[in-house]
Amino acid sequence: MLLSEFCERLEIPFPGDECEIEGLNTLKDAGASEVSFLQNPKYVSQLAGTNAAAVLVTREAAGSLPAHVRPLIVEEPYLALAKASAFFAPPRLDREGEPPSVGEGTVVEENVYLAPGSVIGKHCHLMPGVFIGNDVVIGDDTVLYPNVTVYRDCRIGRGCILHSGTVVGSDGFGFATTKTGEHVKIHQNGNVVIEDDVEIGSCTTIDRAAFGSTLIRRGTRIDNLVQIGHNCDIGEYSVIVSQTGLSGSSTLGRNVVMGGQSATAGHLSIAPFTTIAARGGVTKDVKKAGVYSGFPLMEHRLWLKLQGMLARLLRNGSR
Amino acid sequence: MLLSEFCERLEIPFPGDECEIEGLNTLKDAGASEVSFLQNPKYVSQLAGTNAAAVLVTREAAGSLPAHVRPLIVEEPYLALAKASAFFAPPRLDREGEPPSVGEGTVVEENVYLAPGSVIGKHCHLMPGVFIGNDVVIGDDTVLYPNVTVYRDCRIGRGCILHSGTVVGSDGFGFATTKTGEHVKIHQNGNVVIEDDVEIGSCTTIDRAAFGSTLIRRGTRIDNLVQIGHNCDIGEYSVIVSQTGLSGSSTLGRNVVMGGQSATAGHLSIAPFTTIAARGGVTKDVKKAGVYSGFPLMEHRLWLKLQGMLARLLRNGSR
Amino acid sequence: MLLSEFCERLEIPFPGDECEIEGLNTLKDAGASEVSFLQNPKYVSQLAGTNAAAVLVTREAAGSLPAHVRPLIVEEPYLALAKASAFFAPPRLDREGEPPSVGEGTVVEENVYLAPGSVIGKHCHLMPGVFIGNDVVIGDDTVLYPNVTVYRDCRIGRGCILHSGTVVGSDGFGFATTKTGEHVKIHQNGNVVIEDDVEIGSCTTIDRAAFGSTLIRRGTRIDNLVQIGHNCDIGEYSVIVSQTGLSGSSTLGRNVVMGGQSATAGHLSIAPFTTIAARGGVTKDVKKAGVYSGFPLMEHRLWLKLQGMLARLLRNGSR
Repeated sequence: MLLSEFCERLEIPFPGDECEIEGLNTLKDAGASEVSFLQNPKYVSQLAGTNAAAVLVTREAAGSLPAHVRPLIVEEPYLALAKASAFFAPPRLDREGEPPSVGEGTVVEENVYLAPGSVIGKHCHLMPGVFIGNDVVIGDDTVLYPNVTVYRDCRIGRGCILHSGTVVGSDGFGFATTKTGEHVKIHQNGNVVIEDDVEIGSCTTIDRAAFGSTLIRRGTRIDNLVQIGHNCDIGEYSVIVSQTGLSGSSTLGRNVVMGGQSATAGHLSIAPFTTIAARGGVTKDVKKAGVYSGFPLMEHRLWLKLQGMLARLLRNGSR
Repeated sequence: MLLSEFCERLEIPFPGDECEIEGLNTLKDAGASEVSFLQNPKYVSQLAGTNAAAVLVTREAAGSLPAHVRPLIVEEPYLALAKASAFFAPPRLDREGEPPSVGEGTVVEENVYLAPGSVIGKHCHLMPGVFIGNDVVIGDDTVLYPNVTVYRDCRIGRGCILHSGTVVGSDGFGFATTKTGEHVKIHQNGNVVIEDDVEIGSCTTIDRAAFGSTLIRRGTRIDNLVQIGHNCDIGEYSVIVSQTGLSGSSTLGRNVVMGGQSATAGHLSIAPFTTIAARGGVTKDVKKAGVYSGFPLMEHRLWLKLQGMLARLLRNGSR
Repeated sequence: MLLSEFCERLEIPFPGDECEIEGLNTLKDAGASEVSFLQNPKYVSQLAGTNAAAVLVTREAAGSLPAHVRPLIVEEPYLALAKASAFFAPPRLDREGEPPSVGEGTVVEENVYLAPGSVIGKHCHLMPGVFIGNDVVIGDDTVLYPNVTVYRDCRIGRGCILHSGTVVGSDGFGFATTKTGEHVKIHQNGNVVIEDDVEIGSCTTIDRAAFGSTLIRRGTRIDNLVQIGHNCDIGEYSVIVSQTGLSGSSTLGRNVVMGGQSATAGHLSIAPFTTIAARGGVTKDVKKAGVYSGFPLMEHRLWLKLQGMLARLLRNGSR
């Protein structure tokens, strides 16, 4: 889409200097044919380094843009982004396209739906009720148990196991809210990439990225009923126990363990080889490997001490 | 069913004054052809205002019934209600009835089941593995991703999106327990009503009402793995983040935000424009809009102060 | 498989004294044709009582084995167990075998998959999208709502109801971790047994046992989005409210109530007629019936007192 058309559809002034726009992205990741946005003045310093073709900004912030980036002046950049996201949303299900490709030795059971453009490796097993969207790529020796859903454009590596009811690639929870309190969907135009040797339990949900990919790295084990938000990046050989919830853009190093019913707030990272105990609630970056507990999160030994103090308080109060 | 037959099937005395009984309902909502019940003596004052045809009550409470309401004397009203609920349970799946009606421009993919009596609007998209029960009504432009289940009699508005694995209309968690500890199912004869412009994530469960409707109002956004109990009423433009659990009969005003892994106890209401932070556990009515945290729930600023105090206690204790 | 072959495949020395090996099991439950293992030196005393044919042990622990049990000396017994578990894993889906048997009056709707060897009782209802694996046995009058998955070898009793999206028999979360941090799957070769008159909500996951059975006893009620780990044993007439997570090998007595979002750590037991309040986190055995709350768990009356104390502390701190 030409930038002029992009502006016309958003009903904003065209800044001149025509170019082709292929999508949206963050300031950090946007390339020369992408539009980005700045909502939060806190990140105004990121404007200087962006390679975006154009940026949705308020009039106030526009001055901080480098000369080669076109300013797209709007009152509410995040709302404009939401509206623009619809321009780049692919069809939910294309019935046209390359017929699915299925590798040698792969068994596709009854009632499996393979959309055009999907590519399934060798010696896989797709069990009844599985749905594979357009352009999904699945490596060799991967097993999808009954009623697994993989949305379009997602990638799953070799030797993976996905248990029943699990959903890969549903839309991240993204919307902009208007001044009158209505929510405008931010179409989630990224995907999910699951590397090799990953096992995922049943009824777990892994959301597709708003831009780019939600990434589950090699060798990770994910239990049942886990929520992985959009744009998470889960390190190699991590272990995520049942009913854990990872908010959007959580980054876990390798061999991180998330105990049962633990959680992260979004946009934070956890050092490699860290263990978050059951029910731990991670509210900011964990920079040093160790064992952490509680909500707010603290070192596990401090959490134990705190529980001891509260128990004493309670005992003394009983006298 | 005639009241005399109703009584005969329950093996209780017919109080005379025959009438037609069409169902069960709460004291507050029951109409002139419905039977209600009073289990908890705390609500005895509600007897005076009921319009029910008849009420299952203990001998002690029966005296408080107004003259026009027939008393149905039983030892355990709730247990009698459970038994009676089976009389009004519709078949799980009628194969007879009006053929499904599908609007212009709607795409029904392979392996979709549309039960008799269902009515699908225009320009909808029902993806593979979707199940639509009898007499379900779905508005225009609504999308159901693969493997969504909608139980009979539920209604979904226009422009809604339901992601994979989500279940609308499964039975609420209702039963009466006998003196010897066995559980007797209360058939959930109500439905779920989802208004226009609602988006619901993947593997979320919304239970049908015991009587009447579980209601999700216009413009609400619900994330993945959320539990909505029977007879909840979720206000317009509310936002319910992943892994939240709303117990039965929770009432949320408009634009309420429930943070991740938050919860409500049942039978309470939350004021419009309230935010419950992540992990907040709502144990009683929230009457004043604001930001609340913790379990038990408190104002967020107090929760922050409490955490500060505990941290100081811990630090001092370490000396 | 002969023990000599078992050893050869594991690349460990054959101790002599050939015998037939049919599977793996715990020290306590292993029979004369099963191999067991001892990883944790804490349980070395269990060696004396085992009836296993052979035991995977370290050189240090081998001395504690009774004379009739063959020692299989390995450096990392748990890792060896993981590797051996693959030897006994049945095929995910046999297309050969006895055709499914369906009792009189049972309705099997469209798009239901019944694997060879499955036996469905009378007057059951299997709704669209249901998957039934090999050798599953289901009793009379049981209802499976749309998109329920039952993995191979599981058993479901009479008069049960399973709501949509629920998964019975997915693999327990079991693996051994190598010194370099990679995870090796422990194949879950047990099953799930659900007794009569059990109702299970939607999108609930019940994992199959590593060895033996995960057991849901008669009359239990389980809500939506509940996680039941491998080898749990849930007592008769228990009530498990939504979003509860039971870790592996949790044993609940009869009529235990688990409130919403509650949880157990693994390998513990809860006395009959105990109530764990909402959000309660059970971290050790509950030996005496009562009402318990909090995390760590305490008597509910103490938890209430503690909350009162904290509230006072907060009030005083505000002065």
